[in-house]
Amino acid sequence: MVVQETIQIETRGRSTYDISSQVHDIVRQSAIKTGICQLFIQHTSASLVLCENADPDVRSDLEKFMSRLVVDGDPMFDHRDEGPDDMSAHIRSILTNMDMSFPVTDGRPGLGVWQGIYLWEHRTHPHRRRVTVTIYGE
Amino acid sequence: MVVQETIQIETRGRSTYDISSQVHDIVRQSAIKTGICQLFIQHTSASLVLCENADPDVRSDLEKFMSRLVVDGDPMFDHRDEGPDDMSAHIRSILTNMDMSFPVTDGRPGLGVWQGIYLWEHRTHPHRRRVTVTIYGE
Amino acid sequence: MVVQETIQIETRGRSTYDISSQVHDIVRQSAIKTGICQLFIQHTSASLVLCENADPDVRSDLEKFMSRLVVDGDPMFDHRDEGPDDMSAHIRSILTNMDMSFPVTDGRPGLGVWQGIYLWEHRTHPHRRRVTVTIYGE
Repeated sequence: MVVQETIQIETRGRSTYDISSQVHDIVRQSAIKTGICQLFIQHTSASLVLCENADPDVRSDLEKFMSRLVVDGDPMFDHRDEGPDDMSAHIRSILTNMDMSFPVTDGRPGLGVWQGIYLWEHRTHPHRRRVTVTIYGE
Repeated sequence: MVVQETIQIETRGRSTYDISSQVHDIVRQSAIKTGICQLFIQHTSASLVLCENADPDVRSDLEKFMSRLVVDGDPMFDHRDEGPDDMSAHIRSILTNMDMSFPVTDGRPGLGVWQGIYLWEHRTHPHRRRVTVTIYGE
Repeated sequence: MVVQETIQIETRGRSTYDISSQVHDIVRQSAIKTGICQLFIQHTSASLVLCENADPDVRSDLEKFMSRLVVDGDPMFDHRDEGPDDMSAHIRSILTNMDMSFPVTDGRPGLGVWQGIYLWEHRTHPHRRRVTVTIYGE
């Protein structure tokens, strides 16, 4: 049994956006009891991450870390067509991934208590992002 | 066909722990011949990685590299409730992932000869970690 | 329904190699309409990444970034049996992953317009690499 749905998220620029409840709803409505839920973002400058969901400082520290690791407008970059956050957004996405999978158990996402699902927008301007959710199992 | 099982690993603090044989056993016992095995760790401060399994220096070099890349107690971090390894453990987990999938072929994990499956504990103190193994196929 | 196939790619040394069309062909030939395609590379010194596929500068900037992040022959490394690119190739592979999944929709890979699938060879010398493609769905 396979259920597939695509959702759209309007971002307001670089930040992490909690999409856990949307994904939980799709898993519950699928009526699949045991299996896998796979998430995929159809872009190369935004990613999907699991992150601690209790203290917002975790996500702001993560953002600060990543901004220091992959510097916007690094003079080393030749690809800068769309501004200083263009190439850095591609690298940040590759380091943190465009796909994610987790188990479905007893008809619900089999996540840990502190695991939230976040869309990480790496561009500084707002974007409309597409995420495909595929659930399969029995 | 879907088989799902959760295993617990008691870590002794920051290090990589070989869980290959436990995963191999679950794959064999599933009786699934062709498909996918998906692993998921239900925490935000430990991860799952595939690593060279012949020379232990590879894993100690990996640890040294990561300790230099994500510095414990970095003064930039605001989230430090549980000590200097708290925020760094979250970042290390996001950079190296909480999920992993590999093919099942001829009833066995379709891994390369040198690929071992490791749970990477990023906290310095011992923890009990849960990993869900889901196998699906025919 | 599960379809599994292994392809071989002969690399000419460190670089990214576009394997999108080979993967697209296997998806189309599988006759699976809705599901997941999972890719897995059976090595610990090469990886699989989704990257912007329009401007070659993106991939050369990515290479430059990674070469600066994980320095070949870093004096910190003890594992150097096969040369200065040995340990760095293991770390680069772990940071960018040996597995990848994306949705299959309407019988085709559900990728974004600018997402290309690349095998990233991290060793400086040519290698023969094996990638297993598993497609499941209905």
